[in-house]
Amino acid sequence: MRVLGIDPGYGCVESDGRRHRMVICGTIQTSATGPFSDRLASIHGELAALIRDCAPDCVAIENLFHATNVRSALLLGHARGVAMLAAVQAGLSIAEYTPAEIKRAVVGYGRAEKPQVQRMIKLLLGMERAPASHDAADALAVAICHIHSGGAGKKGQALFARAPLSSKGTVPFCLEPGRPTSWRSYRPGRRLSRA
Amino acid sequence: MRVLGIDPGYGCVESDGRRHRMVICGTIQTSATGPFSDRLASIHGELAALIRDCAPDCVAIENLFHATNVRSALLLGHARGVAMLAAVQAGLSIAEYTPAEIKRAVVGYGRAEKPQVQRMIKLLLGMERAPASHDAADALAVAICHIHSGGAGKKGQALFARAPLSSKGTVPFCLEPGRPTSWRSYRPGRRLSRA
Repeated sequence: MRVLGIDPGYGCVESDGRRHRMVICGTIQTSATGPFSDRLASIHGELAALIRDCAPDCVAIENLFHATNVRSALLLGHARGVAMLAAVQAGLSIAEYTPAEIKRAVVGYGRAEKPQVQRMIKLLLGMERAPASHDAADALAVAICHIHSGGAGKKGQALFARAPLSSKGTVPFCLEPGRPTSWRSYRPGRRLSRA
Repeated sequence: MRVLGIDPGYGCVESDGRRHRMVICGTIQTSATGPFSDRLASIHGELAALIRDCAPDCVAIENLFHATNVRSALLLGHARGVAMLAAVQAGLSIAEYTPAEIKRAVVGYGRAEKPQVQRMIKLLLGMERAPASHDAADALAVAICHIHSGGAGKKGQALFARAPLSSKGTVPFCLEPGRPTSWRSYRPGRRLSRA
């Protein structure tokens, strides 16, 4: 089973039900200067290419009912809307989980801190080091949550994500577990083999 | 010049700079029961088909910095994100206007009421009767605003819409000015001739 987590980075996890391995993780970088509509197109395009390359069986995404304010909620909504569209256009079902469900599934405690989540991600995926980006780690966590819950997430009913797809920050793009490479070395056309 | 207004219905207006005529207007209906992601795909698909059929020169959209609450702002954002994506994927530029700019352009007064806007839409477009749906009338208004402002809207920089794409209500779908037909009679494949 291969699950692509989005929250707000992305992380693809493959599992035989007992052991998991990371296929890829990272964050989407968009130009901070261009028109907002172009950034949406870029997020959609990158995720669509990623879905084609990773060929996940489904997408897991964090839902949220809170945001700092209305302005940031509107921004989140735009980015999350095009991300969900990329998944549904690829014929994938979308499972949604609350932050507490994700932490409980990964750490065993619904109010776990981010560093605890990162350490468990490293452990569960047998990585040499945890993803440098919290966004990518969160995406891997939601994917693992979906696997741990047996794919029983609330499918496409909940509506909200915690944060917009990141437009800045480091890019811990990993083509193989524990071997982070730079974003530049990734080519959307490159096929990722299933291990 | 042909402008497609989205707010949160849609309305396409053609103009020679002096006189305007309505090409089409209406609201997008989505299933209220299915997964939210399917509704986003439906909004995106319908708008993409509409853009193909109407062949507008650009898209005009209302921006907004307010929403009733964070939850409705998140919902708005999702719908508006996929609507903007449909436009940018068709290679169209997106101009954004504030509610006050739109009212000033159509009625001449930035704090005009909705019935005043509807009456002016009817007058400016030579319609037998005003669009029954406020959403469709608002969309025609933002298109007229773009024409009146000489296409000088703030292109793709502002971020927000007033309301989500409507998921219910009447559908005053018009294939010709002043001759509303039902949504059912519209086929996305049908070509709309430029008068």
